[in-house]
Amino acid sequence: TDSYSLLILPGDGIGPEVMAEVRKVIDWFQANRGMRFDVSEGLVGGAAYDAHGAPLSDETMAQAQAVDAVLLGAVGGPKYDNLDFSVKPERGLLRLRKEMDLFANLRPAQCFDALADFSSLKRDVVAGLDILIVRELTSGVYFGEPRGIFTENGERVGINTQRYTESEIARVARAAFDLARKRAGRVCSMEKANVMESGILWREVVQKIHDEEYADVELSHMYADNGAMQLVRNPRQFDVIVTDNLFGDILSDAAAMLTGSLGMLPSASLGAPAANGRPKALYEPVHGSAPDIAGQGKANPIACILSFAMALRYSFAEAQAADDLEAAVEKVLAEGARTADLMGPEGGTPISTSAMGDRIIAAL
Amino acid sequence: TDSYSLLILPGDGIGPEVMAEVRKVIDWFQANRGMRFDVSEGLVGGAAYDAHGAPLSDETMAQAQAVDAVLLGAVGGPKYDNLDFSVKPERGLLRLRKEMDLFANLRPAQCFDALADFSSLKRDVVAGLDILIVRELTSGVYFGEPRGIFTENGERVGINTQRYTESEIARVARAAFDLARKRAGRVCSMEKANVMESGILWREVVQKIHDEEYADVELSHMYADNGAMQLVRNPRQFDVIVTDNLFGDILSDAAAMLTGSLGMLPSASLGAPAANGRPKALYEPVHGSAPDIAGQGKANPIACILSFAMALRYSFAEAQAADDLEAAVEKVLAEGARTADLMGPEGGTPISTSAMGDRIIAAL
Ligand SMILES: CC(C)[C@H](C(=O)O)[C@@H](O)C(=O)O
Ligand SMILES: CC(C)[C@H](C(=O)O)[C@@H](O)C(=O)O
Repeated sequence: TDSYSLLILPGDGIGPEVMAEVRKVIDWFQANRGMRFDVSEGLVGGAAYDAHGAPLSDETMAQAQAVDAVLLGAVGGPKYDNLDFSVKPERGLLRLRKEMDLFANLRPAQCFDALADFSSLKRDVVAGLDILIVRELTSGVYFGEPRGIFTENGERVGINTQRYTESEIARVARAAFDLARKRAGRVCSMEKANVMESGILWREVVQKIHDEEYADVELSHMYADNGAMQLVRNPRQFDVIVTDNLFGDILSDAAAMLTGSLGMLPSASLGAPAANGRPKALYEPVHGSAPDIAGQGKANPIACILSFAMALRYSFAEAQAADDLEAAVEKVLAEGARTADLMGPEGGTPISTSAMGDRIIAAL
Repeated sequence: TDSYSLLILPGDGIGPEVMAEVRKVIDWFQANRGMRFDVSEGLVGGAAYDAHGAPLSDETMAQAQAVDAVLLGAVGGPKYDNLDFSVKPERGLLRLRKEMDLFANLRPAQCFDALADFSSLKRDVVAGLDILIVRELTSGVYFGEPRGIFTENGERVGINTQRYTESEIARVARAAFDLARKRAGRVCSMEKANVMESGILWREVVQKIHDEEYADVELSHMYADNGAMQLVRNPRQFDVIVTDNLFGDILSDAAAMLTGSLGMLPSASLGAPAANGRPKALYEPVHGSAPDIAGQGKANPIACILSFAMALRYSFAEAQAADDLEAAVEKVLAEGARTADLMGPEGGTPISTSAMGDRIIAAL
């Protein structure tokens, strides 16, 4: 059979620990489902900086371009806080996103029934929550020029540029509409068209793509500040949310926290199809590198494992395998398996990172 | 005695109704506390557009510059949704902010004990919540140039510019530190210094002002996406939050919604002291114009009344009067007076906008 090429970049902090559990899952699918993965490994973030003075080497970048999918753990940590902007761990991640042209960042915010009480929101507000934020990832204020710190009239001024072209907006809108068709069929687009011209263009292009190509999908528009409110007030009103890079960064984190269990949430960043028909793709958990608990076997590997499930679905069209892996996760949660981050007020004994991985394998 | 000059701009939707209740409160203070208010009234937003084709006339702008304080109701409505960007109701508000140089927007998010169950968050997460967001209001991406929709390489591109000078950052930082000194003494500054150079400068300047002038205040820094998460997870960890115009727009709305009762939240926008020592100032409720309920006597006047209480405190140094007015509001809430927006699942009979105003006057 065809083999799937994967580049694993564990990164910093708890990245290597959670990735070790994904390795077990990959092995299981190879042993039991006749899949073939061609796995290589590389450095990103602080780990890459330590090894060769840059948060992503050109070799690793080239490898990432060549594989079917990249799996990333997490980047960053206090050790790197005072590095120059240009070599901060985050730059490695941003370089991957930009050079692979991963324009559509999919961030599901799903509330697992067994964990609904972890949310700071009332159970009846978040139970069954299942929204998907589609964030534009390769443009906007993250990458716009001019940018930098300049001197003007005797003082410094910090400048960044929010920039969106019609085609950049159109392609992420199409991604959102395509995803909505496989879900509840509703897209809400968020910007600040009342204040920003880039938001006016955003709204106009999303509406046009809708009217011309996706009239079957329900489209609404919301100002991003109201969007933040509505996510807090009644998040279940949403199906798919599409928004720009910066709003997406903030709103998807707010949405993630609604579920109360950040250690559970995966993400996929997708680009255009490569020559083999598979999209350029990078998968990573939403949680950070959590340096405070790194190396102690306390980290929750589920977000990273579910990121691999997204890879099965979006890169390899192995929908059944993805479903099975997700079901295995739900099963162990329903059985009460909990890593330290999932300890509620009722207490209990947490299991380790690797024990959680083993439980999921057993459930498969 | 000295008289206080006030310009009242009721604006659109429920603006006029809630402002009518503030008028009663003003009358009460004149009749019972020997204060003298010199009140004028003008148009803003859609109401101003209807009257003279612009969302704020030059005359009204000049009046706003001349008075001690402006009280604004709300602007906007579906009737004006398709107006050109340059004459949208919001532009009237933005012009006031910019030309009066109201750089510090104070948005308290306070959870009233009697209303804690209205929050979508659990009572134990929000009970007693009392945070103050200080948002920069006259710069950043709201006003930065270049901006607009241009054509490049045969397609349109929407551009806005995020721009902050050292002095713009310094003055809003000082406002936040000054306010923190009168509160719990803690400031958390939020930006995206990991991605934006304007955020790097922001962080650096806030730290410098702290170290040189406010070492007694506790200062921390947080990325804005994490800030959004932390507001949802555990909002009571914050005392004062200081952030830029766009992050402030989104984060303050999220914070407002944590309290569950938007109809309760006031705001103040302050500039530099005028010749008479009073700061340039505009006060307005956080809620919008709510066109769906306008003219029905259903609106909650409390946010607007509490905005006037902020005027008493920050413009007129009438701290006792402000305290009394706030206490009157708490009292009527504790007694069970509820406008329609404050009807919980337990039901009850809502009172009208004007009945709520009367109750507050009676409690004074
Ligand atoms: C680490 C950082 C650069 C990144 C971002 O701002 O995009 C992160 O917050 C995210 O959302 O993936
Ligand atoms: C009405 C709009 C222009 C305004 C803003 O974006 O600042 C509003 O959302 C606010 O927060 O006061």
